[in-house]
Amino acid sequence: MNDTREVRLDELRALLAVGGSALEERIDDLHASDVADLIEGLDEAERLVLLRRLRPEVAADALSEMEEVERPAELLLQLDPGQIAAIVEEMADDDAADIIGGLHPQLQAEVLSTVSVPDAAQIEELLTYPEDTAGGIMTREVLAIRESLSAGEAIAEIRRQARGDSDFYTIFVVGPRRELVGVVSLQDLVLADPDTPIAEITEDPPASVPVSMDQEEVGRLLSRYNLASIGVVDGLGRLVGRVTFDDVIDVMEMETTEDILRFAAVSEEEQIRGSTADAIRSRLPWLIANLFTAVAAASVVYFFQDTIEQIVVLAAVMPIIAGMGGNAGTQALAVTIRRIALSDESLTERWQVIGKELMVGLVNGFVIGTIIALAGLLLADNPLFGVVVMLAMWGNLIVASAAGAFIPILLESLGADPAVASSIFVTTLTDLVGFFLLLGLATAMLL
Amino acid sequence: MNDTREVRLDELRALLAVGGSALEERIDDLHASDVADLIEGLDEAERLVLLRRLRPEVAADALSEMEEVERPAELLLQLDPGQIAAIVEEMADDDAADIIGGLHPQLQAEVLSTVSVPDAAQIEELLTYPEDTAGGIMTREVLAIRESLSAGEAIAEIRRQARGDSDFYTIFVVGPRRELVGVVSLQDLVLADPDTPIAEITEDPPASVPVSMDQEEVGRLLSRYNLASIGVVDGLGRLVGRVTFDDVIDVMEMETTEDILRFAAVSEEEQIRGSTADAIRSRLPWLIANLFTAVAAASVVYFFQDTIEQIVVLAAVMPIIAGMGGNAGTQALAVTIRRIALSDESLTERWQVIGKELMVGLVNGFVIGTIIALAGLLLADNPLFGVVVMLAMWGNLIVASAAGAFIPILLESLGADPAVASSIFVTTLTDLVGFFLLLGLATAMLL
Repeated sequence: MNDTREVRLDELRALLAVGGSALEERIDDLHASDVADLIEGLDEAERLVLLRRLRPEVAADALSEMEEVERPAELLLQLDPGQIAAIVEEMADDDAADIIGGLHPQLQAEVLSTVSVPDAAQIEELLTYPEDTAGGIMTREVLAIRESLSAGEAIAEIRRQARGDSDFYTIFVVGPRRELVGVVSLQDLVLADPDTPIAEITEDPPASVPVSMDQEEVGRLLSRYNLASIGVVDGLGRLVGRVTFDDVIDVMEMETTEDILRFAAVSEEEQIRGSTADAIRSRLPWLIANLFTAVAAASVVYFFQDTIEQIVVLAAVMPIIAGMGGNAGTQALAVTIRRIALSDESLTERWQVIGKELMVGLVNGFVIGTIIALAGLLLADNPLFGVVVMLAMWGNLIVASAAGAFIPILLESLGADPAVASSIFVTTLTDLVGFFLLLGLATAMLL
Repeated sequence: MNDTREVRLDELRALLAVGGSALEERIDDLHASDVADLIEGLDEAERLVLLRRLRPEVAADALSEMEEVERPAELLLQLDPGQIAAIVEEMADDDAADIIGGLHPQLQAEVLSTVSVPDAAQIEELLTYPEDTAGGIMTREVLAIRESLSAGEAIAEIRRQARGDSDFYTIFVVGPRRELVGVVSLQDLVLADPDTPIAEITEDPPASVPVSMDQEEVGRLLSRYNLASIGVVDGLGRLVGRVTFDDVIDVMEMETTEDILRFAAVSEEEQIRGSTADAIRSRLPWLIANLFTAVAAASVVYFFQDTIEQIVVLAAVMPIIAGMGGNAGTQALAVTIRRIALSDESLTERWQVIGKELMVGLVNGFVIGTIIALAGLLLADNPLFGVVVMLAMWGNLIVASAAGAFIPILLESLGADPAVASSIFVTTLTDLVGFFLLLGLATAMLL
């Protein structure tokens, strides 16, 4: 696949260099996703030449397929408002709103004033919804029919409503004030006798979502009920749009990236393929925050300097106890964060997780503590030294496991994101507790 | 939503306790996904009572909707083979294969011998494909028509082929030996004049996948081309099944869980809601592996004991240098792992990532190193001490960033999973390098 892409890129560059219609003909043979992929492989200058040469509808399809991280908005900035408007008019309304939403306000206004009035009104309405809600990811292009039709009439009505290029999977059945009353699958409609009343094949929608619902929650509902498309309703229950499976797949990919980045204390705004400067800016604040927590943990060591001076080998054991606590805590954290993300449990069930993790820490801490104590005995010829190491490791792993479950559950029940910065809290705690147990016990039992 | 679930569970328990048809009537009102959710909330004994009382088709729908982590296979073990066969016969073939695949071989044979012959043959064929391939997640239930039909004839043919309960979104167009030649969307078929030849509205499938393709790759293709359904072909290009968006969403959820667990060094087999014993077994081997790497890093400290004895404050600085390296390495790791997961880059582009991360380490290491050096000057009244701390931190953050990018790219280009155990390699390396730089420089410059 990578090879094909390299070959295609070279070919495209060659076609860009010459005039004539060969470029356009070649592009027409490709799927819009593949064109998008090629655009991503070009440099800024080449992209601009290509975009200016593509017909607006071809440019629109390709831009719709580009990954959001590639920010086509920046690319468009270099076209004039009229060219942008021509491209945006060829897009589905949700993609158009995404693109226009990425422009600065003055350019937005210029472009919208050039777009035809009904399209501009739709786009402006979509721009009023926050990006990460059902309203922000929906399209207003829905097929809606009245319950009083027959299957045959409904098909005629759909022929009338459907624009050629937009996919639909579910037909929404609405009442007189456009309130959502049910859904008919295209498949049932095709399979039904033309005289069948629509009411007879209308089903209750297994779910519909308000415009303000968080996009992750929309994804969960669509996935839960295996829906290709879910209706979006306003405060009065009127159908205003729909979200389809492909929007949800995009949301899931983005959310996974965010979760993994947050888990590793990277700002979720960092673009996966962004610039070096972006990466530095996104990570430095977290590193500085972490420096303060690391210094706090290290101050425990500073406090016990006298003990280390007398038993220097403790300095070698310290990072082992702290590091293992960090590992065990991260394990509990990862499992708990996924548990919160995937399942719809009551708070009571959630709190029981902490009991489970406490047990895991108790058992694994005992095993790891025993192994390290035996190794410790080889280093220092003192059975008490083994006991100190054992107890410090055991205690730290118990605290680590319990904290790995407790911290995300606490954050979640406070309404915060359970993933964000959890790992910093957990590792700071395990460093603190690890150093304190090891050096405190050593001071009490070995000096 | 949690409240509704608690209320429903209580109601269900009450209905389970009494006889009569009230239970069945209540269950019939619910969506299969909600029934599945309730079953997950019951304990083992209650689940069994409920399963025995549900009609096979209701049980089949609910079991199909249960999350794989809840392993319905274990639940089924307690029914007799005849009951299992009755339930499995009501399922879609892919769900039936998943369930039967989870039984032990003898019970599999017993159940399959009771299932009707054509169903059993389909299920047995599906069982031959590895679970994580296109063949393992596909259904054999496809709508396939010949290119020579008209749109009207095609709709009649689809009426004949379609079973009432299975969703379809794409109609596959096949040649005389069932080789896949194109696709027709149901929507184009409905919109077309009945006399239109199918050949006229047949499109090239933007992609089709071989049975052996990895399920993640299938997901990427479906998502790339925004397909509701993708055809699966055998070695001769003949259509053998299809994978739909809902299978892909399930795969994506599972893969995200696996990625996050692997990243945190938890075995990806750990069930998110599994037992305490499972959690202990899944995590202990990783902790033991980590113990060895931690001891390896600590041996550097052991080697420099004399230095620490003379400058005890180094023991307090050590964990800061090592910990910050771990953080910076994890940041680079997370970004690189997602980059590999999401994009289709050439190897050349991948290797450039290491250059970028090296720059990030250079800049962030300089900033963090300067801050810690200034703090260090306050602790030890010696400018050289500040220089040592600065250089150790800077060096470690450069190595950390570069290794965070290098290790997953290396694993990926060796054909291994880039996420698995990456974090252990990186943190071991940053511990080793951090300790060595700090203590080595201190020995050379301060003693």
